Amino acid sequence: EGNTNGEVSEGISSVIPGWFSEISPLWPGEAHSLKVEKILFQGTSDYQKVMVFQSSTYGKVLVLDGVIQLTERDECAYQEMITHLPLCSISNPKKVLVIGGGDGGVLREVSRHSSVEKIDICEIDKMVVDVSKQFFPSVAVGFADPRVTLNIGDGVAFLKAVPEGTYDAVIVDSSDPIGPAKELFEKPFFESVAKALRPGGVVCTQAESIWLHMDIIEDIIENCRQVFKGSVNYAWTTVPTYPSGVIGFMVCSTEGGPAVDFKHPVNPIDDDDSHVETKGPLRFYNSEIHSAAFCLPSFAR
Amino acid sequence: EGNTNGEVSEGISSVIPGWFSEISPLWPGEAHSLKVEKILFQGTSDYQKVMVFQSSTYGKVLVLDGVIQLTERDECAYQEMITHLPLCSISNPKKVLVIGGGDGGVLREVSRHSSVEKIDICEIDKMVVDVSKQFFPSVAVGFADPRVTLNIGDGVAFLKAVPEGTYDAVIVDSSDPIGPAKELFEKPFFESVAKALRPGGVVCTQAESIWLHMDIIEDIIENCRQVFKGSVNYAWTTVPTYPSGVIGFMVCSTEGGPAVDFKHPVNPIDDDDSHVETKGPLRFYNSEIHSAAFCLPSFAR
Repeated sequence: EGNTNGEVSEGISSVIPGWFSEISPLWPGEAHSLKVEKILFQGTSDYQKVMVFQSSTYGKVLVLDGVIQLTERDECAYQEMITHLPLCSISNPKKVLVIGGGDGGVLREVSRHSSVEKIDICEIDKMVVDVSKQFFPSVAVGFADPRVTLNIGDGVAFLKAVPEGTYDAVIVDSSDPIGPAKELFEKPFFESVAKALRPGGVVCTQAESIWLHMDIIEDIIENCRQVFKGSVNYAWTTVPTYPSGVIGFMVCSTEGGPAVDFKHPVNPIDDDDSHVETKGPLRFYNSEIHSAAFCLPSFAR
Repeated sequence: EGNTNGEVSEGISSVIPGWFSEISPLWPGEAHSLKVEKILFQGTSDYQKVMVFQSSTYGKVLVLDGVIQLTERDECAYQEMITHLPLCSISNPKKVLVIGGGDGGVLREVSRHSSVEKIDICEIDKMVVDVSKQFFPSVAVGFADPRVTLNIGDGVAFLKAVPEGTYDAVIVDSSDPIGPAKELFEKPFFESVAKALRPGGVVCTQAESIWLHMDIIEDIIENCRQVFKGSVNYAWTTVPTYPSGVIGFMVCSTEGGPAVDFKHPVNPIDDDDSHVETKGPLRFYNSEIHSAAFCLPSFAR
């Protein structure tokens, strides 16, 4: 109590007793706090601190290194958008790779696409997978799909070993560009992604908030333009428990295949499909929201 | 210190020393906090507590009854959207009424429209106007326009006295439906608005967040459908310092005049116009963002 410098050293922040506060040099001068009902898990993996708590109004919450990764109440927006922005933009996706995404939410969304035959995931931190399976069954349900192969390891190394042109889509569900995900925002990584994609294949990668990180985003866009020679677009969506309330995505395609127009998706998801039975209906994504995600405010154009 | 029940009784919250924390029964279990550099003003008007502080990363901040109304960093999104959603949807608006909006930001945006001849504003709290003129000159610049007439008083009473069919557009820039703005969310008020509008005139009113207040929004929509017989639409935008990071608007039109299709604006703002010289360029609004604002997530459709 009385600690004003925002250290989040032992799970629950000391700055608001009984609340979790998210304070980081990545968003200086602002904090977002959720009231804690009960801490369900605290551990330290080889890579980061992992915490799960029951919040009073956002359901269960997954926190890595003091940063909220998902809450049961609003995870739909992030998981559905990062997945369906790329997969609904190409016809008939068959092979998909997920880098990060150890909570299983992106897998759940990928598996809604009946054309998909193979889903590989490479997550560096086994503790994230185990904790998600234990505490977030409606998210980790993605792991149950028989098309999924889980690889525990470094995404950068995994991608380097992938034969050229293997995947129709790669989804990079990373945490912020400090900590274990740092390399996933750098050019050599994007080059590995491009190589792993078939001609005209697509990538979607978490790309921060235009309200907070225009400088980081401009660097990412510049790197993507140099590496991906097809379409290069920035899209965004709302996620209340992320800093500034929004999060962005880079969606890009490689050259040499069918041209990809991300703003006009060619592969809509039919909400009546069988996926609804096991995974529930889509809560956030629809074709209108897809196109709207590419409309940017004047300051960010 | 050590106060866990979130009282915001004396300006700066005691829950994070040195920070302002926004805690309210309207968004239970979550709090949004900004680091305070310096408190610039604290006063109590006949209606509410008024505070201005210099934040460390969001510029100056206006707070009413413990709730953030605007910050210099992100006010553009709210002010531009609540104004141009209605005014860009009709040809040649001439007479506009603003209810609330005592900071002057909506006036600033209305005055970008060269067709407008008369701008009335009715704000209940003179302290909000005075404080805004003193601390937020780039927002309160709206009051300087010679077309503006300021009325200090109750918006409900003001509207009742307006001759039928006076205005092309009414903009209701209210605080939340607890406190002095309560009546501005109720049906009799909407009926007064409809009467004050010309046939085919438009209204835009602050209408809360779909992430937090679907129940309130459903009531507002139901009331609007009963009162406004033209178009009735909900739109939304991102504002990082508002709870959940988004805010919504009801945009409606009355019957008997030209049909209004809010999703396809007929009256674009030309950014090269003379308004840019005195008010700066539009920072947020553009025609693409206008149409995208009407695309809702599946859970809110």
